Amino acid sequence: MRMYDLIMKKRNGGTLSRDEIFFMIEGYTKGNIPDYQMSAMMMAIYFNGMNEKETAALTMAMAESGDQLDLSGIQGIKVDKHSTGGVGDKTSLALTPMVSACGVKIAKMSGRGLGHTGGTIDKLESFQGFSTSLSEEAFIDQVNRIGISIIGQTKNLAPADKKLYALRDVTATVDNMSLIASSIMSKKLAAGADAIVLDVKTGSGAFMKEEADAMLLAGEMMTIGKNAGRKMMAVISDMDQPLGNAVGNALEVKEAIETLKGHGPADFTELCMTLGSCMLMVAEIAENEQQAREMLKEAVDSGKALDKLAELVEAQGGDKRMVYETDLLPKASSITPLLSEKDGYVEKIQCDEVGICSLILGGGRETKESAIDLSVGIVLTKKVGSHVKAGEPLAYIHSNEEAKRLACEERLRKAFHIGDKVKKEGAIIHQILK
Amino acid sequence: MRMYDLIMKKRNGGTLSRDEIFFMIEGYTKGNIPDYQMSAMMMAIYFNGMNEKETAALTMAMAESGDQLDLSGIQGIKVDKHSTGGVGDKTSLALTPMVSACGVKIAKMSGRGLGHTGGTIDKLESFQGFSTSLSEEAFIDQVNRIGISIIGQTKNLAPADKKLYALRDVTATVDNMSLIASSIMSKKLAAGADAIVLDVKTGSGAFMKEEADAMLLAGEMMTIGKNAGRKMMAVISDMDQPLGNAVGNALEVKEAIETLKGHGPADFTELCMTLGSCMLMVAEIAENEQQAREMLKEAVDSGKALDKLAELVEAQGGDKRMVYETDLLPKASSITPLLSEKDGYVEKIQCDEVGICSLILGGGRETKESAIDLSVGIVLTKKVGSHVKAGEPLAYIHSNEEAKRLACEERLRKAFHIGDKVKKEGAIIHQILK
Repeated sequence: MRMYDLIMKKRNGGTLSRDEIFFMIEGYTKGNIPDYQMSAMMMAIYFNGMNEKETAALTMAMAESGDQLDLSGIQGIKVDKHSTGGVGDKTSLALTPMVSACGVKIAKMSGRGLGHTGGTIDKLESFQGFSTSLSEEAFIDQVNRIGISIIGQTKNLAPADKKLYALRDVTATVDNMSLIASSIMSKKLAAGADAIVLDVKTGSGAFMKEEADAMLLAGEMMTIGKNAGRKMMAVISDMDQPLGNAVGNALEVKEAIETLKGHGPADFTELCMTLGSCMLMVAEIAENEQQAREMLKEAVDSGKALDKLAELVEAQGGDKRMVYETDLLPKASSITPLLSEKDGYVEKIQCDEVGICSLILGGGRETKESAIDLSVGIVLTKKVGSHVKAGEPLAYIHSNEEAKRLACEERLRKAFHIGDKVKKEGAIIHQILK
Repeated sequence: MRMYDLIMKKRNGGTLSRDEIFFMIEGYTKGNIPDYQMSAMMMAIYFNGMNEKETAALTMAMAESGDQLDLSGIQGIKVDKHSTGGVGDKTSLALTPMVSACGVKIAKMSGRGLGHTGGTIDKLESFQGFSTSLSEEAFIDQVNRIGISIIGQTKNLAPADKKLYALRDVTATVDNMSLIASSIMSKKLAAGADAIVLDVKTGSGAFMKEEADAMLLAGEMMTIGKNAGRKMMAVISDMDQPLGNAVGNALEVKEAIETLKGHGPADFTELCMTLGSCMLMVAEIAENEQQAREMLKEAVDSGKALDKLAELVEAQGGDKRMVYETDLLPKASSITPLLSEKDGYVEKIQCDEVGICSLILGGGRETKESAIDLSVGIVLTKKVGSHVKAGEPLAYIHSNEEAKRLACEERLRKAFHIGDKVKKEGAIIHQILK
């Protein structure tokens, strides 16, 4: 088998066999197939696509390219959740303790943030002492003991995907549904959960700007998961404006805690309830959505959900006092309002721009090696549809450096579009797929 | 400017500017742009194409990536000729002395053979002592003195093309008209001639199987040349069966010499007359084809064309006696007929297969480093349309090793399709374009 022939086949619109795809991925992981052949192949796939079987084979080949977590030592149905990412997406922080409090086993690996979207692992490090790297044994043991553990991705999880994604990232071959779906799912499959709930974002701040594309991606991922024997559900959720109000690591942790107490922003709370219901259903703990929602509400109202977060933080070496006294979380030295210059209605908030503002303040990574400032960020006080008067705050900027604050302020002001139209805020949940 | 953005632009169907193309080619030649980005770009170009301006810019960027020959020290219009290659293509060997004898200045760089197609430089080395590497000064001086010189390509001629072609060759991105045209023309433009006559082959043994594709390629190359201020003509010629009768280095030299004496095969002689006429016309030595043909005939009949070859061989250190006494050329130890097993008409000769047979005998290079046996090859005695009786020879195999001869014989037999139909041999000249 020669990689050249496989490139030619795909270029000419052919279908790659499972053996050919495994040959390609194994060869690439080992370094026998050079980057320049793989990037040509990726571009050919960009143009000619892959069918369901090819996509499934690619995903399995990448999932099997490195370590695969064996979660069989954990009793019950292990449920994972994946979000395609967005601005202000602190969902895992509130959602996983909520469902764990209802009895779902959470053995989750999460990523760090890159660019203007944040990562759960960074946010968790807002709890002083919290360790995101546990041995596989300790990880499984903790899930058996308290029902939940969240750690960073091990280095050797789907290495083929890591190498291939890095290549696609510099060769303009990222945006292909099958490639995106297989990249995400290869890691999810290697991470070993029995059921996976997907949160696929759509809107101006999402990777999938159009709802139709988000549906396609969700469909591709669900098909891959089902082909690999996993129970799958997916939620298409709104990312046309930042999720909730807080954008920035510790600020998002605080908002997640407020939500676990039952005082979270409406959109974010609803997203957690919807995803949580799905997780309870695939875990076979609830029979239907209504029952699931009641269980989740009870977990919040009783304080069990918040206690579960404290338990998680403590188990992984973090300071659990911070869960109950959020003033102990990292805080920025200055909090400055961004005042509206005119009366009107918020017609649009440019989502990516808010993420970039947080990056400017020091809250995100520009490169994989960048250090991040956990305390900085933005808290929106007005969202799409809100009425605002001149002089009223649109948001608060939490910063540690005046120069960065000024740069952020200028940019953040432009991200708010204020006009005469009363635009109704879009529903947070667009679709639920199973 | 970032290569990533250029790949994205082309991938999305955009047009690259001249500056962008120069940035890309200069960066790639220097090693600042990696192979994996360039191969993704090539695949995007394969799918989305390049327009006339982009193709012209790519050609110029590659032509200017290394040394450019300055032929201004040679009086008169310097004419170059390029063939897209085929089996038994010894055209330069007969054509250039013919037109040189008529007064056209030939300052030509030629290539070596690779795979199953031969190279002029290898063939010229059949003349013992013939040197194909001269200094630029000696090269120009020789053309001024005797009107003709043929040397190997200098190492630094269009290095960008060399690097890019090697990459395309292993990433299935060769077959795109604009890329093929710019690759050929970058070398031709760097080689400095004022006028270029193209011999674009079509048929089963040609790179362009379909005449329509050959026309497109010729058109692309002529446009590039004209945009660069060169006089251009092109001939679309037949490569549905080997050209002439001889395939193999010294055997082709012998056939070229026969042709210079006026005794060459009809198809090959006609091709030389047609291309020669074009060269005389672009050189402004003849006013029309009829006049040009008369001049060429006179050059052959008078012996001047043959003498010109002898002069060329002598000037470059070769043994000119071999021109007049072809028995002195390298000879194989065994000459064996391939006998027909049945009566009938030759309906088809698989052109590529005949080339591969010569390769099997040792007459071609499998890799760039292979040594070649100049003496071996095949001489066809029957061509398409010929009647043959069982037991009559179809061809003679010139070989030095029995095992290779046997392998060749088996394969060569299959290359001949003998049936009941009287198929008329196709015309050697399909089109003349100016």
